[in-house]
Amino acid sequence: MKTLVICSGGLDSVSLAHKVAAEQELVGLISFDYGQRHKKELRFAERAADRLEVPFELIDMRHIGQFLSGSALTDDVDVPDGHYAEDSMKVTVVPNRNAIMLAIAFGVAAAKQADAVAAAVHGGDHFIYPDCRPDFIDAFQVMQDRALDGYASVKLYTPFVHVPKSAIVTEGARHHTPFADTWSCYKGGDLHCGRCGTCVERREAFDLAGISDPTDYADRDYWKSVVEAS
Amino acid sequence: MKTLVICSGGLDSVSLAHKVAAEQELVGLISFDYGQRHKKELRFAERAADRLEVPFELIDMRHIGQFLSGSALTDDVDVPDGHYAEDSMKVTVVPNRNAIMLAIAFGVAAAKQADAVAAAVHGGDHFIYPDCRPDFIDAFQVMQDRALDGYASVKLYTPFVHVPKSAIVTEGARHHTPFADTWSCYKGGDLHCGRCGTCVERREAFDLAGISDPTDYADRDYWKSVVEAS
Repeated sequence: MKTLVICSGGLDSVSLAHKVAAEQELVGLISFDYGQRHKKELRFAERAADRLEVPFELIDMRHIGQFLSGSALTDDVDVPDGHYAEDSMKVTVVPNRNAIMLAIAFGVAAAKQADAVAAAVHGGDHFIYPDCRPDFIDAFQVMQDRALDGYASVKLYTPFVHVPKSAIVTEGARHHTPFADTWSCYKGGDLHCGRCGTCVERREAFDLAGISDPTDYADRDYWKSVVEAS
Repeated sequence: MKTLVICSGGLDSVSLAHKVAAEQELVGLISFDYGQRHKKELRFAERAADRLEVPFELIDMRHIGQFLSGSALTDDVDVPDGHYAEDSMKVTVVPNRNAIMLAIAFGVAAAKQADAVAAAVHGGDHFIYPDCRPDFIDAFQVMQDRALDGYASVKLYTPFVHVPKSAIVTEGARHHTPFADTWSCYKGGDLHCGRCGTCVERREAFDLAGISDPTDYADRDYWKSVVEAS
């Protein structure tokens, strides 16, 4: 199966790229620049494509991002510290982001005559992001089957949709993903901050998986107090 | 109902804008520049927004259009003359175009706190474009309801999805749409060519509706021979 992987440069999608490269025919990585505060993670996506020897396609969504306001990822709203709790992380939602990215990726896949688009949505995202939930994924596939009827057949491959992030760490390790060459932190400093929602979630996932976390964190131990308090 | 109308500047979507302005609360027109060979029609969309006194938002998709190749609307493939027959018009399909445009429009509508996105897909497009068919429209709504669950409620309004283009002419006339201020021709010359699929379809729609066609065509009578031969 010729598969195009949506890759942000984060732990989940780089692990997915390595999994697809090992198990299917990886035809490329596609990333979206929708006006994130920092573009650091996109460099890690490009490095993954180089490492896996496939084309890297960066879709410039910055113009469109201007119209999708109200999110801490693109606006001047403070990114909250702490755990991925609903109240604090709702501000990181970009309206309809996954639907937009997936629809574009399906168009690119159809143009490339690929068979599948892979995306690293996972179980831990469900309660906060509706467009990461299994019922969204299922509905998206039905919509695409009808949109491309007679022209192309592209399947949405989301092997992590029912599992927690710790299972992605396990699967990524199995496929020799160089985790230190992935980026999660929302703050985009020199090191992972260790305090934002994604850093806490990343640190906790390695702990739950029982796999050593090679990441350099500015604050390596903050996550414990958050997890203990939650 | 606060409604955002997707408007290309063509007869169908400008008629829809006038219908929505008369019957609902029109909050803006949104157009997509995905690297069409000519941008003439977009100027007619902007003129419609000025006339209806609402914001005009032009989404620059040219960068993304580069990745969606294989279509006569964006590539160096000849646009065919004649009727909208399946064989000749398949080359005008941009892979996943409607899914991409609608997903972006839903994101913009959510950000604007609008209640609906209106699109001018119509019955005559069904047999050639799968992403204009009622079952696609229904599936798209289900997908969006799940994608935006808890954040926004946006409905897809497609009042022309079951009717032929002639009914759009009738409805447009009822709402005083200035048809001469709309553009259909795929070729983008000074005048409508009168020979391409959209020109033939436009001319025929006015004839079937029994409404005088104010359009200047380079070849005003070509359509008859095509319709008689079909």
